[in-house]
Amino acid sequence: MQNGTLLAAIDLGSNSFRLEIGRFHAGHIERVEYLKETVRQGSGLDENKVLSQAAMERGWECLSRFGERLQGFTKQQVRAVATQTLREAKNRDEFLRRAQSLLGFAIEVVPGQEEARLIYQGVSRLLPLSDEKRLVVDIGGRSTEMILGLGYEPRRLESYRLGSVAWSTRYFPRGQFTAAAFKTAEVAAKAVLDEALDTFPPSEWSIAYGSSGTVGAVADVLAANGWASGVVTRSGLDWLVDKLIKAGNADNLKFEGLKEDRKAVIGGGVSVLRAIFDLFGIEQMVPAQGALRQGALYDLIARETDGGDVRERTVQWLADRFSIDEAQAQRVSEVSMALFAQVAAGDTQNERYSQKLAWAARLHEVGTHISHDRSYHHGAYILDNVDARGFSIPELHRMSQLVLGQRGKLRKLEQSLNDELFAKQLVSLRLAVLLCHARQLPEHQSIKLSFKGNGFKISTNPGWSRRYPQSAWLLGEEVQAWQKTAWKFSADIR
Amino acid sequence: MQNGTLLAAIDLGSNSFRLEIGRFHAGHIERVEYLKETVRQGSGLDENKVLSQAAMERGWECLSRFGERLQGFTKQQVRAVATQTLREAKNRDEFLRRAQSLLGFAIEVVPGQEEARLIYQGVSRLLPLSDEKRLVVDIGGRSTEMILGLGYEPRRLESYRLGSVAWSTRYFPRGQFTAAAFKTAEVAAKAVLDEALDTFPPSEWSIAYGSSGTVGAVADVLAANGWASGVVTRSGLDWLVDKLIKAGNADNLKFEGLKEDRKAVIGGGVSVLRAIFDLFGIEQMVPAQGALRQGALYDLIARETDGGDVRERTVQWLADRFSIDEAQAQRVSEVSMALFAQVAAGDTQNERYSQKLAWAARLHEVGTHISHDRSYHHGAYILDNVDARGFSIPELHRMSQLVLGQRGKLRKLEQSLNDELFAKQLVSLRLAVLLCHARQLPEHQSIKLSFKGNGFKISTNPGWSRRYPQSAWLLGEEVQAWQKTAWKFSADIR
Repeated sequence: MQNGTLLAAIDLGSNSFRLEIGRFHAGHIERVEYLKETVRQGSGLDENKVLSQAAMERGWECLSRFGERLQGFTKQQVRAVATQTLREAKNRDEFLRRAQSLLGFAIEVVPGQEEARLIYQGVSRLLPLSDEKRLVVDIGGRSTEMILGLGYEPRRLESYRLGSVAWSTRYFPRGQFTAAAFKTAEVAAKAVLDEALDTFPPSEWSIAYGSSGTVGAVADVLAANGWASGVVTRSGLDWLVDKLIKAGNADNLKFEGLKEDRKAVIGGGVSVLRAIFDLFGIEQMVPAQGALRQGALYDLIARETDGGDVRERTVQWLADRFSIDEAQAQRVSEVSMALFAQVAAGDTQNERYSQKLAWAARLHEVGTHISHDRSYHHGAYILDNVDARGFSIPELHRMSQLVLGQRGKLRKLEQSLNDELFAKQLVSLRLAVLLCHARQLPEHQSIKLSFKGNGFKISTNPGWSRRYPQSAWLLGEEVQAWQKTAWKFSADIR
Repeated sequence: MQNGTLLAAIDLGSNSFRLEIGRFHAGHIERVEYLKETVRQGSGLDENKVLSQAAMERGWECLSRFGERLQGFTKQQVRAVATQTLREAKNRDEFLRRAQSLLGFAIEVVPGQEEARLIYQGVSRLLPLSDEKRLVVDIGGRSTEMILGLGYEPRRLESYRLGSVAWSTRYFPRGQFTAAAFKTAEVAAKAVLDEALDTFPPSEWSIAYGSSGTVGAVADVLAANGWASGVVTRSGLDWLVDKLIKAGNADNLKFEGLKEDRKAVIGGGVSVLRAIFDLFGIEQMVPAQGALRQGALYDLIARETDGGDVRERTVQWLADRFSIDEAQAQRVSEVSMALFAQVAAGDTQNERYSQKLAWAARLHEVGTHISHDRSYHHGAYILDNVDARGFSIPELHRMSQLVLGQRGKLRKLEQSLNDELFAKQLVSLRLAVLLCHARQLPEHQSIKLSFKGNGFKISTNPGWSRRYPQSAWLLGEEVQAWQKTAWKFSADIR
């Protein structure tokens, strides 16, 4: 990447939306601009997980302002990431359609593990490189991420469903700070974080960092009130809770160092933080500078660099975890990419879609870990639910739809099939699966696949069907399968 | 098991129902009686997978006759197993309710892998013990099982969706035998068996056995017509197909050795058999004496013997395959069984249900292999779909419901919760998961669980809640969770 390149990351969090613009220089990113708006979208999610109109409006207004600032940026320069509130919101598609149009860029709703990975990347890039074993805790609005890492490498990642907005709404609904409310909130937080102690045992890390607004705010208040600067201690935290209970209500808070927009969520945030101190026996936590948005910026650099794409490593990890037959996966991947290149040439997005097709092909047999019977259904289920670092939820769903449609009837796909590029990926994958049926690399160079109007056509050299009668018969079946869709599919198999 | 004990197995196949009664003697089973009725239930399954009233009636009539013969047998002496047609039939519960009442015994609908395991067990028990590597092929009415085994041990098991009834219905609908129809049927069979060549490569076995009615019938016809006795050869099979095509129609068949009830399914059966010969390059196949029903009989013996229950080994295999934390699984298993014993004492089925609870407990974290987030949903999905030898489909579903209900709201269970024994298993499992929250064995000896009327009550020794505040809080949450069900749940935590 060229020195001086501008990069931008947008973090659509449950509490606030943030825009960070940086300039690439010699492997690092220097801040150019930082905007934050307390949209508090997470409190607009009702009990049926529907985002209120008002919460959507607040988000759209903010994103239209961010969009104005991003005029002139190309999509290679921007990454926009949404987290827990939009993971949960049932009407997220409605929000996202307008949001993306206002922002001018795609918004990725990322799984919790991916959020944790980006947070760790952001935190570790802004710390001096060292060999300390770190626990990083990020208390967000509706989810809390924990990461155990060494240097730039996250070793364990988890995302838990609790946070400052969610805990304030649930345990401090009218902003009343009582000792009983804090106790209940902390016990409930420990219940959710139950298994975290097993995943991140204190014996395996030596220092705890806190990367979110909550920890930053607490550290600011403590420093402004005469506590040791730059660190949150257990005794400081206890002092703060006492002060909150004495104030009795969020509206009465008059602390040095506490910003106005933090008051509404300080109760929930502090109770989660104290539960974590308790559970892990933490004596002090260091506020970290980096966060999700910095992680997203560094990811833009890594994707440009050869082999740096974390998704590639995730695909390999999944292949191992679900005991995939790698030789067959490679064959199907190779053949599907060769076929896709014949129908997708000239398309500027070609390369990205080819890459995603190759990943789906590498994972197309993932479901056999559960059972061979209906294995493509199991594969689709796994990809829709697995913790897959580096991937967004829609990316995973597209791969799951390709895996689901790898063979058999096409009825099960419906919606995704309307997309022309998806149809091209799917045809390429299905033909590759079919041609590799004997689990050997087939002679596919003589196969021509073309696309015109709304139709696919496959043809072979003369004599091919005599040499490959089983493949020829399967191609006949394939023609049948597509007749029930909006796409035409014909074969000239000689 | 005492010498002289009578044992019975019922095989509810897609083509015929069979009853085999044997007498245990010195580790072996001697035939006492064998009944077979050509119910052909598989042809009564319509395209929406609904079993016709007539097909159900045929089944019920047959089972009422079998039931009469089984008067005086206890349930430890009987195993009834149903296969592909009932695996697929959407209205199977309707059929099974009446069927079980007429037969007087429970009927297990088993997964394809379990069917394959029982077939191999039946075949291998009736062959001399040797170190030959065997391929066993069982062409059933609607499914075909293949097994690679050595001695009594099956190494690989698969079940494919094709068979004599299904292929006759689809490719020889009016019983017309033409060369073209055979060709189409064989190509289609190879398409379904595609991956079998990879799973059972000819280099890994030295002899092929055929265990089903189709292979037996073909061998009989060949022997009666002057071919080598006791074996099906490739040239004999080709001769038979020629003869069928010359006869032109199932109604015109007049072969020496061909029974009347085989005529309607010989076309489909032979085309599947020839596809298998072709695909694997088989020159000859030996008809085997043993089959599913003998396997079921030997299983009745094995379950009586310590450690012989294949389900125990399957649970261990699943724990390995899905990387379960064994220490935690053992803890939860131990605590849940101790609690269950307190509420299920005096129930004669106690031991069986306790065993199944223990298995569910050992597998309760299986879903974390996909993701920690919503892991109990993933666990339930896996248990509902995984290939689990030794288990019937309803057994697996009950375990999946326990895994699904291990924590959180109980709404998701609804139906199963009506069953009192299920509720007792679930309470025991949930409390065990809760008490082991710190991933250590809790002090559970001082916990009393009781059941009276429709209510559970849990109580502790004084001082317990002070020592275990987190557990005490979780028990309070548990009381809440049960308030939304038909069961009462109270706690006296001191």
